[in-house]
Amino acid sequence: MNRNQNLTTKPQVVIIGGGFGGLYTAQGLKNSPVDVKLIDKRNFHLFQPLLYQVATGSLSPADISSPLRVVLRDHHNAQVLLDEAVDIDPDRQQVILKDHEPIPYDMLIVATGVSHHYFGNDQWRTVAPGLKTIEDAIEMRRRIFLAFEAAEKETDPVQRQAWLTFVIVGGGPTGVELAGAIAEIAHSSLKGNFRNIDTTEAKILLIEGLDRVLPPYTPDLSAKAEKDLVKLGVTVQTKSIVTNITEDCVTVRQGEEIKQIASHTVLWAAGVKASGMGEILAERTGASLDRVGRVMVEPDLSLPNYSNIFVLGDLANYSHQGDKPLPGVAPVAMQEATYLAKLIPARLAGQTVRPFEYVDYGSLAVIGQNKAVVDLGFAKFTGLLAWMIWVWAHVYYLIEFDNKLIVMLQWGWNYFTRGRGARLITGEADIKPSRMTEIPNVPDKSLVAR
Amino acid sequence: MNRNQNLTTKPQVVIIGGGFGGLYTAQGLKNSPVDVKLIDKRNFHLFQPLLYQVATGSLSPADISSPLRVVLRDHHNAQVLLDEAVDIDPDRQQVILKDHEPIPYDMLIVATGVSHHYFGNDQWRTVAPGLKTIEDAIEMRRRIFLAFEAAEKETDPVQRQAWLTFVIVGGGPTGVELAGAIAEIAHSSLKGNFRNIDTTEAKILLIEGLDRVLPPYTPDLSAKAEKDLVKLGVTVQTKSIVTNITEDCVTVRQGEEIKQIASHTVLWAAGVKASGMGEILAERTGASLDRVGRVMVEPDLSLPNYSNIFVLGDLANYSHQGDKPLPGVAPVAMQEATYLAKLIPARLAGQTVRPFEYVDYGSLAVIGQNKAVVDLGFAKFTGLLAWMIWVWAHVYYLIEFDNKLIVMLQWGWNYFTRGRGARLITGEADIKPSRMTEIPNVPDKSLVAR
Repeated sequence: MNRNQNLTTKPQVVIIGGGFGGLYTAQGLKNSPVDVKLIDKRNFHLFQPLLYQVATGSLSPADISSPLRVVLRDHHNAQVLLDEAVDIDPDRQQVILKDHEPIPYDMLIVATGVSHHYFGNDQWRTVAPGLKTIEDAIEMRRRIFLAFEAAEKETDPVQRQAWLTFVIVGGGPTGVELAGAIAEIAHSSLKGNFRNIDTTEAKILLIEGLDRVLPPYTPDLSAKAEKDLVKLGVTVQTKSIVTNITEDCVTVRQGEEIKQIASHTVLWAAGVKASGMGEILAERTGASLDRVGRVMVEPDLSLPNYSNIFVLGDLANYSHQGDKPLPGVAPVAMQEATYLAKLIPARLAGQTVRPFEYVDYGSLAVIGQNKAVVDLGFAKFTGLLAWMIWVWAHVYYLIEFDNKLIVMLQWGWNYFTRGRGARLITGEADIKPSRMTEIPNVPDKSLVAR
Repeated sequence: MNRNQNLTTKPQVVIIGGGFGGLYTAQGLKNSPVDVKLIDKRNFHLFQPLLYQVATGSLSPADISSPLRVVLRDHHNAQVLLDEAVDIDPDRQQVILKDHEPIPYDMLIVATGVSHHYFGNDQWRTVAPGLKTIEDAIEMRRRIFLAFEAAEKETDPVQRQAWLTFVIVGGGPTGVELAGAIAEIAHSSLKGNFRNIDTTEAKILLIEGLDRVLPPYTPDLSAKAEKDLVKLGVTVQTKSIVTNITEDCVTVRQGEEIKQIASHTVLWAAGVKASGMGEILAERTGASLDRVGRVMVEPDLSLPNYSNIFVLGDLANYSHQGDKPLPGVAPVAMQEATYLAKLIPARLAGQTVRPFEYVDYGSLAVIGQNKAVVDLGFAKFTGLLAWMIWVWAHVYYLIEFDNKLIVMLQWGWNYFTRGRGARLITGEADIKPSRMTEIPNVPDKSLVAR
């Protein structure tokens, strides 16, 4: 396939996954004497930390996506292949693709990330969607804004309140961001938009199993975040376990007490599990997986039995530093990518490389406009200053300058107008009927068969 | 439903359709002593003249969409109802909705527009999609950019050329815009993005049945447009009829000659027919339809037998001015809306109103960057000046200032970078296989059942 393949004997580095881990590795290898092939199912890199802003109508999908071919356009040793890796043959050193002949590698880097985890309750997937892909975000956006539309049409006050009740399961950063954004939608963005309902009567419930939101953070930041959420109009319910979700009801257990909450809009932010590539790697290489399917890696991110296969990012369980595995956040993936981009040419040159070491520059979580919490280790911030640090950090890392510019301007505009211009209800040609029980989970033929 | 309904005896004006005709009528009635209900299937107004820019990856859907509730937020006599009108009862003066009780009206305005027309070949719909909705545009965008991806993976040179062959059926404004934009994608936007193909080898064919492109324009402007298209790399084939379209071939007849063109990407810009509401109106009111299903209206846009039902925009055939019906373009719909917004309060006050009269300020069509044709009647422009008039006119009419700002900036950025940041391939979780014949037209369950 590669026209250069016959002319060169450069080592072949194959990367599966164009997220932070895979893409940053490909970029970091720009001047290395290797050929890089980046395989991804999608033709763009997704800036996942801002995906909740697409789900809540603030940004468009393209604002947080960068075409992989554009990012790697001037990386002449890199080739993008739009395809799905379905298997790995570690002994013949090949990646098996869905729609292409097998790709040989000298070094393989697997960075396929994670997907939602319903803890054995996969039937909740259709009634409580999670947030990992652009399609997920568009589906969440559709449900959130359709709920207000359905409430506007509903004459029965009990049903109306069910449409105006939003339950977010999981009090980690994504759950906190979603809850805060939905509260802002109800209290400011939709102000004056409806005639039959008062959107400020919406109930936004954030359910967390542990004793506080943002459990990885320090207790005082969690307390501040909760205070900010309450100020925005979110009801935070901790130490609570969701025991059932149906199309019109969420069952929550808090200690001995069991409550049924009538709601048509439940969003899942409670857990992730490793992508299927983890199991394939375990089966083919004998690598161990942790309880959410992440691959246990060596101190240099390689697999125990195959020193030429590396796993990084959310898919990797790196337990060689501190008493817990490194968290599944973008900075870890980026630093691992930088490490691998140095390790590969060094190893090819016969040099040894020190184990990977993560430098924690701190954690950020945003709650709403002017509201965030930032923990830099040596200092903690909340409120406006924290929010400004959050904005800066996110704009800084948006890969293309194009996106940075548009996102900054869109944010600036949203900031002053409290508007959400991207609140389109799309993706299904039909309108959701006013009773959730009528919503079919069958494909909409008018859309798909176009 | 309307909390005010019991308190008021204001005349009820019901508008079906939130396009240029419907939305501008609703806006124009802001200070009239009427209650306005605007019914639309979608929660946004779509700025259709720029839809081709979504289909070709220059703009995001939200850039050309304005939430109806935001546009009408400060129109306190207007209410938006997200629903589908499925029938009309002109004698009981009610609109029957899909998911809501019937809506009574004193005056009814129908502005539901048009959809694609395949001239009896509805089986072409799946292989040659048209461009009317956001979903249409995302599907076109997916096909255009996937075609280049498939070509990059294809080893057989004949198949590869078929992937690099784009056929646009119909040489009106939409066909010209699409052909020009795809030529720009192939020749500049994708430059340096691929490793196995030269995107400038793409063939872009524009097929037109009449003897020139842009048939409604003067012959010299048509000639100029064709020259510009050819300069961009488009092959223009006039006096040609498409006789068959399959998944991998288009059959074209030019006089006696019949040609088969191997192509996997055929885009339909050849014809429209009235939306189904036309037939309902004909059946219920005895109104006449023209051969594409448009409703024949009286000089005041009302129906012959029902002076309180009005039809405007693309759905109306207005034949009381000139020797042809008024064209289906946004300016006609906007002027008709302005007319109705004056007629309604005048008629309620017992005044008579003069027949509608369209003022033709000219026609515009864009071919590519710095390339457009403009006919203002008293003067004609081509090239850069025409393009600047086109840009100004379109930004001016984008309803919300938000959109105007973002679109201007996005265009400014695209202008200098020749980039297309919105070229995401989304909407189907799976990648199209490298042979078109394997592409199923069945719904993708992984996407829909989320």
